[in-house]
Amino acid sequence: MKQFTHNITFQTTGSSLLDVTGPIKSWIHGLNIRDGLLTIFIKHTSASLVIQENADPDVLYDLNQFFRKMVPEGPGLYRHSLEGPDDMPAHIKSALTQSQLSIPVTAHDLELGTWQGIYIFEHRSHAHKRTLSLHIMGE
Amino acid sequence: MKQFTHNITFQTTGSSLLDVTGPIKSWIHGLNIRDGLLTIFIKHTSASLVIQENADPDVLYDLNQFFRKMVPEGPGLYRHSLEGPDDMPAHIKSALTQSQLSIPVTAHDLELGTWQGIYIFEHRSHAHKRTLSLHIMGE
Amino acid sequence: MKQFTHNITFQTTGSSLLDVTGPIKSWIHGLNIRDGLLTIFIKHTSASLVIQENADPDVLYDLNQFFRKMVPEGPGLYRHSLEGPDDMPAHIKSALTQSQLSIPVTAHDLELGTWQGIYIFEHRSHAHKRTLSLHIMGE
Repeated sequence: MKQFTHNITFQTTGSSLLDVTGPIKSWIHGLNIRDGLLTIFIKHTSASLVIQENADPDVLYDLNQFFRKMVPEGPGLYRHSLEGPDDMPAHIKSALTQSQLSIPVTAHDLELGTWQGIYIFEHRSHAHKRTLSLHIMGE
Repeated sequence: MKQFTHNITFQTTGSSLLDVTGPIKSWIHGLNIRDGLLTIFIKHTSASLVIQENADPDVLYDLNQFFRKMVPEGPGLYRHSLEGPDDMPAHIKSALTQSQLSIPVTAHDLELGTWQGIYIFEHRSHAHKRTLSLHIMGE
Repeated sequence: MKQFTHNITFQTTGSSLLDVTGPIKSWIHGLNIRDGLLTIFIKHTSASLVIQENADPDVLYDLNQFFRKMVPEGPGLYRHSLEGPDDMPAHIKSALTQSQLSIPVTAHDLELGTWQGIYIFEHRSHAHKRTLSLHIMGE
């Protein structure tokens, strides 16, 4: 049994979902691990991780819009406001989604369903650098 | 240290929670692993996973009803509508819950609390086949 | 490759977030594991786990207040009421957050971002004892 760790940093474009499936798969394909478990952890609390449909881009649009309405910005809504009106909603949206995902690996590939992709869900209004900590264990 | 992977497919009955604790435990009990880590990953984005109370069935009913009100169906609410009015709400409810769960295993059994069960949360209106990818590592 | 398991019980103070990063780190530091994967599982369905900002305590206050408004208590709202008006909302808030977190470990330390802490999110009104099941695998 072997393990590897790796950090990858992505540039988001502000409030939206960024498909990171490709770069994560590339990292795995370069390792000599046939079967195992991949874990992805996001080192931030105003962006998060989700598995979502990668077929229709409208799904990503609707998902983001739903979260923006469910967790509104606005003066007087939150005590925590000194990092901007989009910061506290971003923390809440992170708690409502995932900070971490683990996905089984078989035959050198992720056990994703046909229409599944791995996304960074950027909750802040503006572009940010977001670092993922990756860990894989297997043989 | 050993590992095993396995896929199990369940038939859901449409919008509701399905207890899958038994079949998952059965798989583990057939393996020679005393202590380790089990990971469950659902290969779909319109159904998800949750740990919930297995004592009072009203808990499952209330949970499902709450999610149905929180993420309503309706014409004009979403751009993504070509797979039916229940599809986009299903994607949102999946993002709001879990696509994956990992549970420690000790003495050949899952480290679940007394009243905890593992559930597939079906978000689509109609019955679907849902596949879980299981991974266990331990000794 | 080695693994260790451990249960830790915390006393919460009722509806609020409790930082458990320190005790979890202490357990890891006492083990001879340089790199690996830590998994934390909460053995309850009316309290949950979240990664959140540990800098401004207002973030924790706002997060809790948001969840209390999003999932209200009230007569007639839920069928499941025999464990008190705060019990069913607690189950829903647990499903909306996490029952489990896995975090990579490198150089004997958790791969947390600078401002990230690990929290038990107590959803019941009154103080409760909450047990976490910890698992670490690595070398």
